[in-house]
Amino acid sequence: MDNFEDERSYLEFLRREVTLPDGFRAASVPLSFTPQERPSLEPYRMNLNALVCDEPTDAFAGVFTRNAIVGDPVLIGRERLLRETTRGVLVNNKISNVCAPDGRADALTLTSGFASQIGAIPEDIFPASTGIIGWKLPVAEMSEQLPALSRALSGDSVVDFASGIMTTDSFAKVRSVRVGDGSVVGIAKGAGMIEPNMATMLAFVLTDLDVDRNTCRSVLPEAVEQSFNSISIDSDQSTSDMTLLFASRQAGCPPYEEFSDAVREVCMKLAEDIVRNGEGTAHVIRVDVDGCDSDRDARMLGKAVVNSPLVKTAIYGNDPNVGRIVGALGDCAGSEGIRLAPDMLTVSIGDVRVFDRGVFSLDREKEIQLSSYLKRVAMNPRLRGYPQHYGRVDIHVSCGKDRGSARVSGSDLSDEYVHENADYRS
Amino acid sequence: MDNFEDERSYLEFLRREVTLPDGFRAASVPLSFTPQERPSLEPYRMNLNALVCDEPTDAFAGVFTRNAIVGDPVLIGRERLLRETTRGVLVNNKISNVCAPDGRADALTLTSGFASQIGAIPEDIFPASTGIIGWKLPVAEMSEQLPALSRALSGDSVVDFASGIMTTDSFAKVRSVRVGDGSVVGIAKGAGMIEPNMATMLAFVLTDLDVDRNTCRSVLPEAVEQSFNSISIDSDQSTSDMTLLFASRQAGCPPYEEFSDAVREVCMKLAEDIVRNGEGTAHVIRVDVDGCDSDRDARMLGKAVVNSPLVKTAIYGNDPNVGRIVGALGDCAGSEGIRLAPDMLTVSIGDVRVFDRGVFSLDREKEIQLSSYLKRVAMNPRLRGYPQHYGRVDIHVSCGKDRGSARVSGSDLSDEYVHENADYRS
Repeated sequence: MDNFEDERSYLEFLRREVTLPDGFRAASVPLSFTPQERPSLEPYRMNLNALVCDEPTDAFAGVFTRNAIVGDPVLIGRERLLRETTRGVLVNNKISNVCAPDGRADALTLTSGFASQIGAIPEDIFPASTGIIGWKLPVAEMSEQLPALSRALSGDSVVDFASGIMTTDSFAKVRSVRVGDGSVVGIAKGAGMIEPNMATMLAFVLTDLDVDRNTCRSVLPEAVEQSFNSISIDSDQSTSDMTLLFASRQAGCPPYEEFSDAVREVCMKLAEDIVRNGEGTAHVIRVDVDGCDSDRDARMLGKAVVNSPLVKTAIYGNDPNVGRIVGALGDCAGSEGIRLAPDMLTVSIGDVRVFDRGVFSLDREKEIQLSSYLKRVAMNPRLRGYPQHYGRVDIHVSCGKDRGSARVSGSDLSDEYVHENADYRS
Repeated sequence: MDNFEDERSYLEFLRREVTLPDGFRAASVPLSFTPQERPSLEPYRMNLNALVCDEPTDAFAGVFTRNAIVGDPVLIGRERLLRETTRGVLVNNKISNVCAPDGRADALTLTSGFASQIGAIPEDIFPASTGIIGWKLPVAEMSEQLPALSRALSGDSVVDFASGIMTTDSFAKVRSVRVGDGSVVGIAKGAGMIEPNMATMLAFVLTDLDVDRNTCRSVLPEAVEQSFNSISIDSDQSTSDMTLLFASRQAGCPPYEEFSDAVREVCMKLAEDIVRNGEGTAHVIRVDVDGCDSDRDARMLGKAVVNSPLVKTAIYGNDPNVGRIVGALGDCAGSEGIRLAPDMLTVSIGDVRVFDRGVFSLDREKEIQLSSYLKRVAMNPRLRGYPQHYGRVDIHVSCGKDRGSARVSGSDLSDEYVHENADYRS
């Protein structure tokens, strides 16, 4: 992504360059409510947002959180994935509708209400909610806004929708790729590093390409595995995570591989945007792992590195602490039964080899060189630009065995992370 | 443990109250060396420490790290566990002898050298090292001190040994239990929260009871699982963790259960000492999980809670954020295939129920009450006493299914943790 001078020029760019694929409309309307759980608070602001296909489509797919405790929107979404057709999704921010009293009835009331506004079958609308866990949705206030939401639907731009679903995101996340005679456009929200009650990851992928239902359902899970499931900030799976793909089937269809690559590219870019978003983040960390028995093994090893609090704090401190990287790899391999031969293992930070087939390869000069590399790629808040610029630390792990590989992204662990997360509600 | 006025009175108490079991001697001697890897540094101080049985014994056991990348002392220890007899262990701090050039030869040279000093078979001494990963042991300087170490062996007290093996530990960790006609005495080092290149956990359990080899080898792994493997600070398994049990077989043997309980008790107390030790720790967190299909499931769920950066930072901030606890439980259950029914699940913090069979049960009053509970049990650095006093946050998770249960301890995540870990080498 280019760097923009400020938020306005970034959003103007998105409005100008990214159009909704044919056959889709989107909208966002604000509403105010007083939370039942905090009657003493000032009225809260929520956005009610929708993405709809003009016609019912049978070409759609969804991937939901693997968390064992999920919100009612996820439970309902899993059911609606089995249906013949869909018309789209209704999304609110601020309250996630997880383990709240009457959560299911509330979600059903809202999706039915919206469906009747747009002349759809009630079950053809997916519900999606992100925000505080445990609170109850303000159903009356939300229902009142459904006619306005329906009237606001427009095929012009996806920017209002992308901004409306944000919680603590610091910028709207939109990515698009032209492919065949149409395009793939993705919108995501997810902040991760801060305010994690709201760390739900929601992503919506739209295409006007004439791809069939089976293709959608084969392409999306693969793309999610290599993108949203390969980033790691503080927790892999919230209670409400979901990714939905809708195809309006209006444009000439490219070969399977081309479509699959386009969806993966959009998802990977959105996933990187989510990692980049963290306000407590000084470094984005990218770990490439190869030479494993399987891609799955490689992904687990990469995640072990970006999840290790010791590695994360070392990188935050610009300390090229390869002992912690190797310790995290060995811990994961030992616990998960992944074959890892130390004497085949090499590890590099940037382009400096720091562990070479079983032996550490570090000296004072390399450490100074690596430490200044880490300082150089750290976020510099004095740099201008929007979204805020982050450098990236590249770590390369080579296991020397087979062809399994993966790329995993995460972020460092900063004082600010602790500060933000500790102070969130106090 | 009682609170003592200062370090001196604590060590005096240990010297007075804890004697080595019959048939054992211990010693610690200091030495100085200039690290080959940092010739520019001031001479480093290391302690060389030994624990020996007066006679060879066949009753011993060991549990080693499951990390796939291990130091040479672990590799050698695994071999020596298969032998008929042992005489004890030689331990150094400061350098962990992991993935260093000629690490195996160095460990063999040192254990042989010490064995010849005490008239033992070379293979009858276990090596153990803790400290910086990747550096080479100063074998010449260490070998020079072996005669002095042998001369210093004494049956009086275990305190010098316990202090000598410390790295960044803030207090020496010794626990003992009288049982049958003898005792079980344990010594551990492990700091966890800070300076994690040295976070190796070493524990040595001695008994004069006449227990046989099979008993030792059945009791130790079970005790380790419920103690050292049930705490979680930043990483479960370093490259050098080990626990060794030696029996001198001189005192009347109690029934199996009594011995097993004694070893478990000593290990659990040492494990709590390790959690309490963290200098970056404001709260110790104890999670009791019950009602699971198995103890293993319960332990995994408990660890998911104490390992969650979101839960850890919330507790640091005195925020009773039950959404994060429930999210961590569900994430673990979903990823690990643990059966968890939200509508059977209850969660309490302190003695306040915050999640009740699928629904959050929080209101403003409960939140205020819980927040002041968290503040009350937080460490107060102005409190006098040694070792430093920590309160403990009790979290109770009840899954309502079967009889599997576990107790897991960990610590919160503080600014100071990040600070200490980020600044460790820079």
